[in-house]
Amino acid sequence: MKLSKLLGKNLREKPSECFLQSNIFMIRGSYIKNVASGIFSLFLPAKKSIRKIENIIREEMNNINGQEVLFPVVMPATLWEETNRYSTVGNEMIRFKDRNDSNMVLGMTHEEAAVHLAKGVATSYIQYPFMIYQIQTKVRDEPRSRAGLIRAREFTMKDAYSFHVSKNDLEKYYEVCHRAYERIFERVGLREAISIQSDSGVMGGSISHEFMLLSDVGEDKIVICKNCNYKANIEVFVKNNTSLQLNDGLSFEETVEIINGCKCPACESKSIYVSRGIEIGNIFQLGQKYTKDMDMKFVDEKGESKFPYMGCYGIGVGRLYASICEAHNDNYGPIWPISVAPWEVHICALRIDNKDVKEVSEKIYNTLKSDHLDVVFDDRNSSAGEMFADADLLGAPIRIIISARNLNENKVEIITRDKSEKIFAQVDDTLETVKKMISKEYKKLNFND
Amino acid sequence: MKLSKLLGKNLREKPSECFLQSNIFMIRGSYIKNVASGIFSLFLPAKKSIRKIENIIREEMNNINGQEVLFPVVMPATLWEETNRYSTVGNEMIRFKDRNDSNMVLGMTHEEAAVHLAKGVATSYIQYPFMIYQIQTKVRDEPRSRAGLIRAREFTMKDAYSFHVSKNDLEKYYEVCHRAYERIFERVGLREAISIQSDSGVMGGSISHEFMLLSDVGEDKIVICKNCNYKANIEVFVKNNTSLQLNDGLSFEETVEIINGCKCPACESKSIYVSRGIEIGNIFQLGQKYTKDMDMKFVDEKGESKFPYMGCYGIGVGRLYASICEAHNDNYGPIWPISVAPWEVHICALRIDNKDVKEVSEKIYNTLKSDHLDVVFDDRNSSAGEMFADADLLGAPIRIIISARNLNENKVEIITRDKSEKIFAQVDDTLETVKKMISKEYKKLNFND
Repeated sequence: MKLSKLLGKNLREKPSECFLQSNIFMIRGSYIKNVASGIFSLFLPAKKSIRKIENIIREEMNNINGQEVLFPVVMPATLWEETNRYSTVGNEMIRFKDRNDSNMVLGMTHEEAAVHLAKGVATSYIQYPFMIYQIQTKVRDEPRSRAGLIRAREFTMKDAYSFHVSKNDLEKYYEVCHRAYERIFERVGLREAISIQSDSGVMGGSISHEFMLLSDVGEDKIVICKNCNYKANIEVFVKNNTSLQLNDGLSFEETVEIINGCKCPACESKSIYVSRGIEIGNIFQLGQKYTKDMDMKFVDEKGESKFPYMGCYGIGVGRLYASICEAHNDNYGPIWPISVAPWEVHICALRIDNKDVKEVSEKIYNTLKSDHLDVVFDDRNSSAGEMFADADLLGAPIRIIISARNLNENKVEIITRDKSEKIFAQVDDTLETVKKMISKEYKKLNFND
Repeated sequence: MKLSKLLGKNLREKPSECFLQSNIFMIRGSYIKNVASGIFSLFLPAKKSIRKIENIIREEMNNINGQEVLFPVVMPATLWEETNRYSTVGNEMIRFKDRNDSNMVLGMTHEEAAVHLAKGVATSYIQYPFMIYQIQTKVRDEPRSRAGLIRAREFTMKDAYSFHVSKNDLEKYYEVCHRAYERIFERVGLREAISIQSDSGVMGGSISHEFMLLSDVGEDKIVICKNCNYKANIEVFVKNNTSLQLNDGLSFEETVEIINGCKCPACESKSIYVSRGIEIGNIFQLGQKYTKDMDMKFVDEKGESKFPYMGCYGIGVGRLYASICEAHNDNYGPIWPISVAPWEVHICALRIDNKDVKEVSEKIYNTLKSDHLDVVFDDRNSSAGEMFADADLLGAPIRIIISARNLNENKVEIITRDKSEKIFAQVDDTLETVKKMISKEYKKLNFND
């Protein structure tokens, strides 16, 4: 991609009404554009990164025998009436009538659709267990949506649903999926994500976990014990401490003050503290709620008719993308992990009106492209300052700077986005040097290739 | 993928109320499941094929410098009011109010969203031309939706929008895109698709073409001249023949009778006839309608402010998929072109309870998988008849049959889905033989690799 043709216009100023770093950089760098409150269009850089994240998720889901399917965005209300959620879910669910005056909803989650798909076609125990998943647009009419992709009203989600002949089999698969989630977060550059016990809320079921990125800008509160391994979200912690009364009106600081005086429910030490976090994934053991409500049965080994056990497993893709930006940035822009960067390599041609610079830059660009590297080429005739500012905003992990001065010594400068490494390579060694650096970046994220 | 774990249940009977081959096979083979009128969930085989089609489209769009973006499904009515389409488009557009009582719509096309994204960021002629495209869910509340994926109310579409500094530049790019469409249809196995002049209708603009697959089950009528190169849809033909009066109530046969008596508007011969067709793509020269309505401007070389010219280019992905099935099937199921088949290779293990059959099948399956072939393995202990019927329904172009009888001679049988080729290969030569056959299948579709 040549930057002169990339649709977008970078802003030097912080946009008004943006308070999260990820949102600021994504607006400033023309990653996203606001269409309505909490509703965005994506420019190429965001779309590319999100596709990379989706492909990592897809690989890990396929690795645990997931079958990719697709459920509709628009569903008939009748489907949601079977589980009573048409009336119990609030106005975060969009409802409307179609041309035949039938009540319809926009999918904000797809348990009903998953059971609908599996019902009648997974009738024998031999077919179990199985897991189906989709990567699809979801719509939740959130009241607060001022945080860019961290909390949008329309977003892409990976949601998976597993079906089992027994509770025990569900529990085993739940662990398998937990590990797949750890691999996903590691590969997208969020190894630091932690999983905590959570409250199942509207989903029903008993055991559930949230994957959290600890972050000062998170809206979730997490209670952590320094002494033992206890980690839980605040709702679960309050449930475990029946003596504790927290009313909803408390500020974060007031909550922290009350809770930091409590005992850890696990080890009884007074070593607990409260952190803020962003929820980047969740997994639930749903049990038989949905299969019973929708009368989905299978025949077991003894010929008896039974309701399958279900688990469900979600990751908000756009939110995960923005969370990566929250975790990896500096004052100048995102520092994307290579696995999710819009481009792996960013070529800056300093003064492309210089014949040598132009020639060498074009040649390196074409060489890298021919070798299937994912590369963007700043071919505009702008100042070094502007060029570097834009490269910082696009956040490619490896940057090649081509200038007349270095070409005098037949060299190019190669630096990493985080400025930790800086190499002067012979022009002819550029490809090999860059490939080595790329491979090193992927290894950091524990990629196999 | 092992077939014993594939979610789905094949039906031997024709489902009621299905009249199209593609719909019948997709229901019978557990490719799709009806959720509401014209709304479907996709099982793994359909999802896999559709991803392959999407990737072919993506490659061809990227080859003509397309930038992949994403527009929202849910849009504010205000955006559609700018072009007056909020009031002029009928009730095929879903309208509702969000929690803040704002009027919202579900995207059935994205010209407004495309201009919204480009406006203010493509302000200099230097940035032109550019093309942006998305592959995204669309919703059209069609009154007739009884044809499976051929005419659904919710469907995946590739829609592209190009922007130009002049009419001449738009016309040049329009030709480029026309050729890209020809490559797409060739690669998915529909080389026979033809492009015809069409009427722009609700889209505005002047010149437009539809890509048609001639098919007895198509809902569109196409007038073709046997003598010259004239091809047009019936609306354009009627416009070209001012003397001709066709009222809407006429049957296909009545229309044919009237038109077959007409002269060709191009060569004046009486060599015209009428065919039915399925519209699988369309391209429009929109001109400045949308950029003027939405006040999108750029500054040209002379410093003057101007409205860009636009083109738009659509392909309904689900409809294309079903059309491929209409064009390529026999009495037993789809005969998928290899580029879009859910799996390239289908292994049938006849009597897997036989130790040798099991061992060899597993080994071949693993060998093929390790070599990154896309393979499904029927590991169920079912009869040969059932196995072949299911393999016909899944339509993989290459089938390996492993039986005790052939293993006695250390051979396996390899046949193509269309039965045109049948080989007995040494067990150890299976991989090489299959790879050669796969490569041949891709060459038929003009793939470069």
